[in-house]
Amino acid sequence: MSGNTFGNLFRITTWGESHGPAVGVVIDGCPAGIKITEKDIQKELDRRKPGQGKLTTPRKESDKAEILSGIFEEKTTGTPISILVRNNNQQSKDYKNIKNLYRPGHADFTYDMKYGFRDYRGGGRASARETIGRVAAYAIAKKIIPTIKINAKLIEPNPRLIEEVKKQGDSIGGLIECTIKNVPAGLGSPVFDKLDARLAGAMLSIPGSKGFEIGSGFKSAQMRGSENNDALVSEKKKVITKTNNSGGMLGGISNGMDIVFRVAFKPTSSIAIKQQTVDTKGNNKTIEIQGRHDPCIAVRAIPIVEAMAGLVLTDEYLIQKTVK
Amino acid sequence: MSGNTFGNLFRITTWGESHGPAVGVVIDGCPAGIKITEKDIQKELDRRKPGQGKLTTPRKESDKAEILSGIFEEKTTGTPISILVRNNNQQSKDYKNIKNLYRPGHADFTYDMKYGFRDYRGGGRASARETIGRVAAYAIAKKIIPTIKINAKLIEPNPRLIEEVKKQGDSIGGLIECTIKNVPAGLGSPVFDKLDARLAGAMLSIPGSKGFEIGSGFKSAQMRGSENNDALVSEKKKVITKTNNSGGMLGGISNGMDIVFRVAFKPTSSIAIKQQTVDTKGNNKTIEIQGRHDPCIAVRAIPIVEAMAGLVLTDEYLIQKTVK
Amino acid sequence: MSGNTFGNLFRITTWGESHGPAVGVVIDGCPAGIKITEKDIQKELDRRKPGQGKLTTPRKESDKAEILSGIFEEKTTGTPISILVRNNNQQSKDYKNIKNLYRPGHADFTYDMKYGFRDYRGGGRASARETIGRVAAYAIAKKIIPTIKINAKLIEPNPRLIEEVKKQGDSIGGLIECTIKNVPAGLGSPVFDKLDARLAGAMLSIPGSKGFEIGSGFKSAQMRGSENNDALVSEKKKVITKTNNSGGMLGGISNGMDIVFRVAFKPTSSIAIKQQTVDTKGNNKTIEIQGRHDPCIAVRAIPIVEAMAGLVLTDEYLIQKTVK
Amino acid sequence: MSGNTFGNLFRITTWGESHGPAVGVVIDGCPAGIKITEKDIQKELDRRKPGQGKLTTPRKESDKAEILSGIFEEKTTGTPISILVRNNNQQSKDYKNIKNLYRPGHADFTYDMKYGFRDYRGGGRASARETIGRVAAYAIAKKIIPTIKINAKLIEPNPRLIEEVKKQGDSIGGLIECTIKNVPAGLGSPVFDKLDARLAGAMLSIPGSKGFEIGSGFKSAQMRGSENNDALVSEKKKVITKTNNSGGMLGGISNGMDIVFRVAFKPTSSIAIKQQTVDTKGNNKTIEIQGRHDPCIAVRAIPIVEAMAGLVLTDEYLIQKTVK
Repeated sequence: MSGNTFGNLFRITTWGESHGPAVGVVIDGCPAGIKITEKDIQKELDRRKPGQGKLTTPRKESDKAEILSGIFEEKTTGTPISILVRNNNQQSKDYKNIKNLYRPGHADFTYDMKYGFRDYRGGGRASARETIGRVAAYAIAKKIIPTIKINAKLIEPNPRLIEEVKKQGDSIGGLIECTIKNVPAGLGSPVFDKLDARLAGAMLSIPGSKGFEIGSGFKSAQMRGSENNDALVSEKKKVITKTNNSGGMLGGISNGMDIVFRVAFKPTSSIAIKQQTVDTKGNNKTIEIQGRHDPCIAVRAIPIVEAMAGLVLTDEYLIQKTVK
Repeated sequence: MSGNTFGNLFRITTWGESHGPAVGVVIDGCPAGIKITEKDIQKELDRRKPGQGKLTTPRKESDKAEILSGIFEEKTTGTPISILVRNNNQQSKDYKNIKNLYRPGHADFTYDMKYGFRDYRGGGRASARETIGRVAAYAIAKKIIPTIKINAKLIEPNPRLIEEVKKQGDSIGGLIECTIKNVPAGLGSPVFDKLDARLAGAMLSIPGSKGFEIGSGFKSAQMRGSENNDALVSEKKKVITKTNNSGGMLGGISNGMDIVFRVAFKPTSSIAIKQQTVDTKGNNKTIEIQGRHDPCIAVRAIPIVEAMAGLVLTDEYLIQKTVK
Repeated sequence: MSGNTFGNLFRITTWGESHGPAVGVVIDGCPAGIKITEKDIQKELDRRKPGQGKLTTPRKESDKAEILSGIFEEKTTGTPISILVRNNNQQSKDYKNIKNLYRPGHADFTYDMKYGFRDYRGGGRASARETIGRVAAYAIAKKIIPTIKINAKLIEPNPRLIEEVKKQGDSIGGLIECTIKNVPAGLGSPVFDKLDARLAGAMLSIPGSKGFEIGSGFKSAQMRGSENNDALVSEKKKVITKTNNSGGMLGGISNGMDIVFRVAFKPTSSIAIKQQTVDTKGNNKTIEIQGRHDPCIAVRAIPIVEAMAGLVLTDEYLIQKTVK
Repeated sequence: MSGNTFGNLFRITTWGESHGPAVGVVIDGCPAGIKITEKDIQKELDRRKPGQGKLTTPRKESDKAEILSGIFEEKTTGTPISILVRNNNQQSKDYKNIKNLYRPGHADFTYDMKYGFRDYRGGGRASARETIGRVAAYAIAKKIIPTIKINAKLIEPNPRLIEEVKKQGDSIGGLIECTIKNVPAGLGSPVFDKLDARLAGAMLSIPGSKGFEIGSGFKSAQMRGSENNDALVSEKKKVITKTNNSGGMLGGISNGMDIVFRVAFKPTSSIAIKQQTVDTKGNNKTIEIQGRHDPCIAVRAIPIVEAMAGLVLTDEYLIQKTVK
């Protein structure tokens, strides 16, 4: 309801602000007996960490995960798994001089409208730092669906363009494609929890995402039925489709083909270039945002796209155990 | 969990198969004292009815809504509102000869995989007929947020092209744009229930939808931050943005500008043209689908897009009452 | 949230007022492939029907269940099961003369306080008629846990006392004991969804119930640990307990022994004797309630106690499939 | 679903095992702008702490609460509040020698049955230590409903008897009565979420509770309607009842009178006296439980009873904002 919980049977609740003492996640509904160590979680977290290359922000964080419950002798116990990551490199003073200014492209103004006031140090819950909990949860989810392989990659822009844009103090958007292999047919739920509906919701929950399409996607709006329908064929006793315009599902339920979808990300909102804005009292102002920022948030969104896809599939995998 | 319920505080559960005795909806969480009559509901249902023009299926249904509970002396009582619509023009015999064939583009195969068997008469829960309950619920939701105006329209294809395609026994996809005016700033929830995430999920839950984008959408993947960020300005004591690339929200929370999004629909899967498929025993077959079908499902999806957008906003409107 | 839905995986939503056109239930999350006919449901409904003996109200209702969805060729399809029962013997005119009076012991005043107004014809949602949907749902639930046997019986008062009280135009309370056999060890969830917590909540949701106790119950408040602890013993390779003070569960999880609990019911609130009350304008008045009423609601609550226990166990049975 | 979350709008998820590194709670749905400090939380925690008198276990814990999110400049921000309490005085070695024995009266056997294995160091999630999170959450809830006054007290046994029993190495049960004043009429939800149903579920979720009754409770089973019905009277423009057999609610909705209920607790299961039991391999054994234990868990349950009542009322208070 309050937007901080995702999933039905494999259910995660993330908490924490970018400039508070810590961020974390509580994972509930994880089956008992799954083998997991802090190393497994750390490995996934390291993939999303900033400061890893020229294309990301130099903000360095150790992002060390501490498991506080739900795991005993390296196995899940079936009780809630609480994971904590301390925030230890916040530079809150960077934000003091923009305390009363709404940053364009950020949620500053809208959070103020919603809650009546806000933690002005960074993006609060809207910060990408919130996604740490999602990635930690995915490290565990992966062990529940070990045969399913999820792989996201940046389709555009190319790295050279990102570096160029960065030098200009500007930022650029990006497009990610995600392919999921070895999904058994029959996963997903009807009507409101169609697999594509859940994936769309999951992807648009990632900071900065602006669009989602599956299979033939927006192109299908111009296609004919005779062209877009995937013919079914029986091959080696398995039903497959000759093409995959559906993107691996029909009626929101997986058909056993690869799931393929794309997510569009807007350019990073924090840029060094001077912008027009308004202060909290409603006066017109200009703003120049300092601090360290990723030139292309899509680059850092790659592991988050995988994590969210994995959380959806794990949840539906558990739901399917109760269906027949 | 099972996918048949939508919403948190304003919560609808739809039920019913296209070829069963009836379809319906239970609306729970509707505030007490809202004025509503069967006429209000009928008016919305009539908009989605088939058989209304050259561009839709000739299947004629009276689609008469019967209110069974929750309304007393034309006012909601705060208890669940149950609405029933009988199915009275099903031609189940149309489906007998394809009982054992999986229709390409339909959920026949995937439902069999999920549940172990299925009601082979039409699309069951995957049928567009399920959406009647959503539209009926929206007729009530509208009264809770009377100042918010939701308007969806078909961007492409043009009507002439639809008719042409229909003559060929084929079908065509379509693109819908939806604009929502007068949304107060501050609606929507953080993280997983961002307004755009919820809208994306809601839109992809509509049969045949393949993509969603908001504001600058997929185009934003190629834009620079300096170009995509919407500058804030104060005008007549109101904070607005000079452009609306965000599509009316930041961090998943409305900023008071128009909400603008687009939804892509694939071409109708049922076409008169012969197609390759597989039967329930795994033999390769061909199929020719008779019966009456819409050449472009996007046309009939227009009121459903509005309904789903309205259900999301009504739910968030009620949630906002508990936030501060 | 609005109180009309019960259960997590096997989830029922009841709707309908006692004097509206119908009452009903939507059952969601029922596994596919369960054999069920309208007769199975009717059989359970007939058990709860009024007018069956000297001890219940003479209000006669056919209470005929109509299945509207989710069952095809006598098997559940995995989609929502909608069941409708028309109200065909309401005597609304009985209520006209008490339209503006709050009946003592009834929810008239509290519903007015909650919703601002109410359907004054009978108890609305607070009527025992609402429980029809629960019983219909239990008819299906039973098929999912066929080996578990649930049996409730009236401990007190004896039938002669009930008849005596009835002749006086008065009513009397009652005590029900419910025993559940063949429950596998391991059902139930920790902390807030302990099996006893869920049973207590379920029982107190039955109109007129005032208390719940399990195993040694209220007596345990005076017992010593050495007396109340159930010693474990191994018998024929099965772990059992020598006594059953726990009532079949520890830490809210079943231990394989019989589940035994008791539920106290208050006397029927509607009595023929003159009572002091207040009208909707706040004036002091007296009231004499006519109409047909059960002298002891506990008698009619027996099948509801069984139904609610069955719904809890079915839900936890499905949950357990996802735990290890 | 997994039992670790309580509440709808004011929603808490507790996590942590008695012998893991920490226990904690995430509170979601707390309105923004509520003034709260770590001191407020500490004050409530100190009330439930062990080691406070002759009647409780000498296990001393600092139980220091650390707020990790959701509060900024001493006000709630509307985002999840994460509270952590380290476990710093566990004596896990106490448990080593009973690692393979099921303690009578404890959840050892049932957790093994449910999850396939368990954390054998203490009660895990079934430990009273889990309730720290509930009490911390109540410290915040209190600020949302400041006029409502909740007060629980031990009715029996008397302190002298507890000390006597303790000297014998035995334990004793107890009875708590809780009175809630200044509850506005109209709180609570119909049917399954009746206020008494929710309170019953909440109370039976407290470790060791065996029974719940409200108002005239179990006594009402022997009462006549003419005796048990509370007459309504109008006094100083307020509708009150002459007696309060209903315990402050009708149809599950508060009527403005005091809410009065009682909860029965069994004697502490851990006793120094030798008991018969079974080991994890199914062999008959005897067990003597060392370590430090409360002679009467009811004593320590007092603040938990208040906390759970407060959580229910706060949740229904927020729900009521959306009802009319």
